[in-house]
Amino acid sequence: MKPYAIGIDVGGTKIAAGLVDRAGIVLERFTTQAHAEQEPEFVISAIEAAYHAVLAQSGGEAADIEAVGLGFPGNTNGPAGLVLTSSNLPAWDHFPLRDVVAERLGVPVLLENDCNLCAVGEHRFGAGRGSRHMCYVTLSTGYGIGIIINNQLYVGHTGTAGEVGHIVIDIGGPPCGCGKHGCVMAYASGVGLSRMAYEAIDTGAETLLRERMPPDRQRFGGEVIAAAAGQGDAVAREILQTAGYYSGVGLSMVIEMLNPEVIVMGGGLTRIGPMLLEPAMAAMREHTQPELWDSVRIVPWQLEADLGIIGAAANVFAGAETVRK
Amino acid sequence: MKPYAIGIDVGGTKIAAGLVDRAGIVLERFTTQAHAEQEPEFVISAIEAAYHAVLAQSGGEAADIEAVGLGFPGNTNGPAGLVLTSSNLPAWDHFPLRDVVAERLGVPVLLENDCNLCAVGEHRFGAGRGSRHMCYVTLSTGYGIGIIINNQLYVGHTGTAGEVGHIVIDIGGPPCGCGKHGCVMAYASGVGLSRMAYEAIDTGAETLLRERMPPDRQRFGGEVIAAAAGQGDAVAREILQTAGYYSGVGLSMVIEMLNPEVIVMGGGLTRIGPMLLEPAMAAMREHTQPELWDSVRIVPWQLEADLGIIGAAANVFAGAETVRK
Repeated sequence: MKPYAIGIDVGGTKIAAGLVDRAGIVLERFTTQAHAEQEPEFVISAIEAAYHAVLAQSGGEAADIEAVGLGFPGNTNGPAGLVLTSSNLPAWDHFPLRDVVAERLGVPVLLENDCNLCAVGEHRFGAGRGSRHMCYVTLSTGYGIGIIINNQLYVGHTGTAGEVGHIVIDIGGPPCGCGKHGCVMAYASGVGLSRMAYEAIDTGAETLLRERMPPDRQRFGGEVIAAAAGQGDAVAREILQTAGYYSGVGLSMVIEMLNPEVIVMGGGLTRIGPMLLEPAMAAMREHTQPELWDSVRIVPWQLEADLGIIGAAANVFAGAETVRK
Repeated sequence: MKPYAIGIDVGGTKIAAGLVDRAGIVLERFTTQAHAEQEPEFVISAIEAAYHAVLAQSGGEAADIEAVGLGFPGNTNGPAGLVLTSSNLPAWDHFPLRDVVAERLGVPVLLENDCNLCAVGEHRFGAGRGSRHMCYVTLSTGYGIGIIINNQLYVGHTGTAGEVGHIVIDIGGPPCGCGKHGCVMAYASGVGLSRMAYEAIDTGAETLLRERMPPDRQRFGGEVIAAAAGQGDAVAREILQTAGYYSGVGLSMVIEMLNPEVIVMGGGLTRIGPMLLEPAMAAMREHTQPELWDSVRIVPWQLEADLGIIGAAANVFAGAETVRK
């Protein structure tokens, strides 16, 4: 049993890597500007560079690394080592990322969806410790869950379990990036917040958001909307209220369907705090059978900024142990 | 390892019991008119009578019975042996049905929600054989699912997993028996069909259903609505279309959240056939990400009328094996 794993989290804006020990402590970190919306060859080279940078920083050797845990956003089939789709770049369709990276690095690689890895990380080292059935809900650019059942990550038959963000909750509602309409994620996500902000601006609403629009109609950051809401902007408050409401509807779906012991809520948008989370809790209660309200503890994430790397490493430790049983 | 289990299925209109062998064959059957909407003492006596009747019919002895599998509708906590709620009869709240029945019968009893037992039955002896992750969807008086993960029944932290029927899909929609509005079950169930039939009648619609109303505004049977639809009644067809549509929305939730290998569809309403199931399949596709359409096989139940008893017995066989491992 080797003492370390390297966790590499391929995100929408950066790739983060870290050397992690078996207590879940991040000993070295490295970040690069490459991201998941680029072509495979570019991303793979960046993963390779990040791996070597972390190893060099630590002064350690590949022989001390159990494996690399690799997190990737969007639809993946972790057990098969595949990215299923990414960012509408056809080159990613069913791309065997695990094996290509393992070949390059010369160490074993475990690929998994990033949100699933967050679940593993919080379950093993964070807010979900000690629970048997746990869900991690991410409220960030997207909305999704990672599912722990019987202390193990559950990914489903083709690796895509947890797509709560693409459950339709508002039939005939606004378009979602997936091509459907009225998905949870069309409201309860960074993408949803930005859509609502532009809708308000385009329909002539009086709001601070108008003068704070990002250039070229790029995505509004959640923090910009939160800042306006904090200054009393009614439109921004209403947007957060709506996003929170649908987040809570998503929570109720998780509770009704999976009856977990603990739900860990994480993701950058949770930092907005009560303006988003209070309507979420109210909507959760409104949409959940009362006898289930107290069946679950809903708690904030603990590992926050490091969760992507720690989760990826935690999956290595969990997997390695499973193999050795 | 004893050769038989007795499965007892407490339903909404009757209690069915059967002697079942380890191949899933029902050797003896017994049915009584008692049902889950009666007081506990009455139901328990009926369970006891059914047990003894089956045993007497078979000429067998209690010593050959591994255990009694007991199915109960509604919210149960099987692992804890509790009925959580039933039929708004307060006497059922957190009632320790498993232990009370075991004491009466002098044999071990395994209590579980009836829909969960249907999942176990179809997984072990029916249409779900050989799948690792399977869901059983029941389309009957209610709408619910039983979840098999890693070849085992998954019931969640407090035993209530699978309450898809009470996920809200139409915010502000019609009332559901659970006290919420717009639940899947408010449309996609026998209860929902009946509600829609009365609504059509009450708003003056021209329909064969008017003259076929059951006395005292009791629940319309699905077969009555199906018969009218078969005779070309536009209102009845529309009702089936709507129920089918929301059934399919429920299926999409199951696929997005759980990514099962197989979904087994059962329950009395599935006998209505294409008038209900075609809109269900269409809505499933409409509401599911296209890349998941082919991730799952959706198949009809195989054990049908015997499923309640066989499922209850299958849970005994599964549990007994687990204990002995």
